[in-house]
Amino acid sequence: MATTAIEADFAAWMGAIQARVEEALKRCLPSAQLAPARLHEAMRYATLEGGKRVRPLLVFAAGEVAGAEAGRLEVAAAAVELIHAYSLVHDDMPCMDDDVLRRGKPTVHVEFDGATALLVGDALQTLAFQIISEQSGDATRALEMVRTLALAAGSRGMAGGQAIDLESTGKTLSQAELEFMHVRKTGALISAAVKLGALCAGPCPAALEQYAHRVGLAFQVVDDVLDAEASTATLGKTAGKDSKQGKPTYVSAMGAARARGFAEELRRSAHAALEGFGDRAVRLKQLADFIVLRKF
Amino acid sequence: MATTAIEADFAAWMGAIQARVEEALKRCLPSAQLAPARLHEAMRYATLEGGKRVRPLLVFAAGEVAGAEAGRLEVAAAAVELIHAYSLVHDDMPCMDDDVLRRGKPTVHVEFDGATALLVGDALQTLAFQIISEQSGDATRALEMVRTLALAAGSRGMAGGQAIDLESTGKTLSQAELEFMHVRKTGALISAAVKLGALCAGPCPAALEQYAHRVGLAFQVVDDVLDAEASTATLGKTAGKDSKQGKPTYVSAMGAARARGFAEELRRSAHAALEGFGDRAVRLKQLADFIVLRKF
Repeated sequence: MATTAIEADFAAWMGAIQARVEEALKRCLPSAQLAPARLHEAMRYATLEGGKRVRPLLVFAAGEVAGAEAGRLEVAAAAVELIHAYSLVHDDMPCMDDDVLRRGKPTVHVEFDGATALLVGDALQTLAFQIISEQSGDATRALEMVRTLALAAGSRGMAGGQAIDLESTGKTLSQAELEFMHVRKTGALISAAVKLGALCAGPCPAALEQYAHRVGLAFQVVDDVLDAEASTATLGKTAGKDSKQGKPTYVSAMGAARARGFAEELRRSAHAALEGFGDRAVRLKQLADFIVLRKF
Repeated sequence: MATTAIEADFAAWMGAIQARVEEALKRCLPSAQLAPARLHEAMRYATLEGGKRVRPLLVFAAGEVAGAEAGRLEVAAAAVELIHAYSLVHDDMPCMDDDVLRRGKPTVHVEFDGATALLVGDALQTLAFQIISEQSGDATRALEMVRTLALAAGSRGMAGGQAIDLESTGKTLSQAELEFMHVRKTGALISAAVKLGALCAGPCPAALEQYAHRVGLAFQVVDDVLDAEASTATLGKTAGKDSKQGKPTYVSAMGAARARGFAEELRRSAHAALEGFGDRAVRLKQLADFIVLRKF
């Protein structure tokens, strides 16, 4: 296939998965007709029609490598996206980043109110664990999925990364300290997406864990570069926030050029981790490229 | 036994369970020496040395009826208390009740800050699901525990009850509407505690579910009466908040005397639900009495 045909094929695959995950999220989120209606409306506002769905794409791509059923992957993908959506709602609140724009729309606390944003985040997190617990099939594996998601989201994972981020504002961090923070703040949930996809079929192979770790870190490095270089319109969220808030980033630590180089290095080592899987890993490889080479 | 001997025996049982749960919570909460240290310190501050531990007591009392192992009950009790602790931290935040005092101490956002309070609540919720997923033994039952806790905590349970509470401020609710709210806001987690205790041994008997529903509702009715009648010093949290905030309560809906009568009625019907269990249900009966007759 020519480059453009490969690109078109990848874009079609992405579009199909994104549509599938959107439907799964619509099904698992309570109807806005159901009491408490305003809370449910806000939960749907925060989650639906938004974002690139990178984590669900990773769930499906890893599931393809592992040979998992699509129905199970839908649940895992929706769960990890619910955790991601909850974290965005809470991060945007006035007591955190105090941001007004997300995915091109007013943030939840702006569109609704602060108390509703708090409850939306809380209830989205709960729903993630609920839907995993309600799937049929192997309970041992489902319980391992609960554990994987909880470890990635909790105080040793995403929430912990956020806390380190808060403590670090105005400070200069070494590359090792930055990595410690980012492996938790963003990397943990990205990694969890890959592991959850694999867990839908069986134990997660070590090579996939390596891939997950590298791609998770690359995602954050690229996020830092984009925050420094892209526009608010392109990102659909406020650009230039990190330097304005005095947050240490890969760009502030090593400059944009070296940060881009580091992301490229991580992309190559992510590819290398997949070598043993052959053609089954094509989507994971393409996603590593997509994550590192994206412009938004 | 004379009344005082029975009381002393119940007090000793409560003290023993409370101490046991405190140790279980200390073990499952990350050490304050571990990074991010401030977050972990705040999680411990929010959870340890606080409260009557009503939900853990219900877990153990229901476990006694069902014949569950103490080790499993510890995990269930700690999990439900972590959910309760998270909800208190978030409820006290400025965008919700904006309260400064909880369990006789400054609230988390006062002692630490708003962003930390947000993350503490988030991470405590996650930890509840994590510890259930990490217990050994029957995975099907553990997964059912995840589901029970998630249904009780989410938008159709506790978080939903909070949202209805917010929407109701300044309104007059009928008794049916009040019950709809309170069954979710407080009742759901109280009920879940009973079910989790039973689930540690096997499926939850219907009679225990009935008991749980009645005691859960009674708990909130008494809470309303105490908020109206007790002092801040006795409660360890700000008294008189409901009427000041214009919140509909059982006291505003039916007056304090009828609310007390309703709680008494619920206490009796909770006892009635336990009849088939004989002596095994003595702690559950005593807890129903404790919940309705408490002064704080």
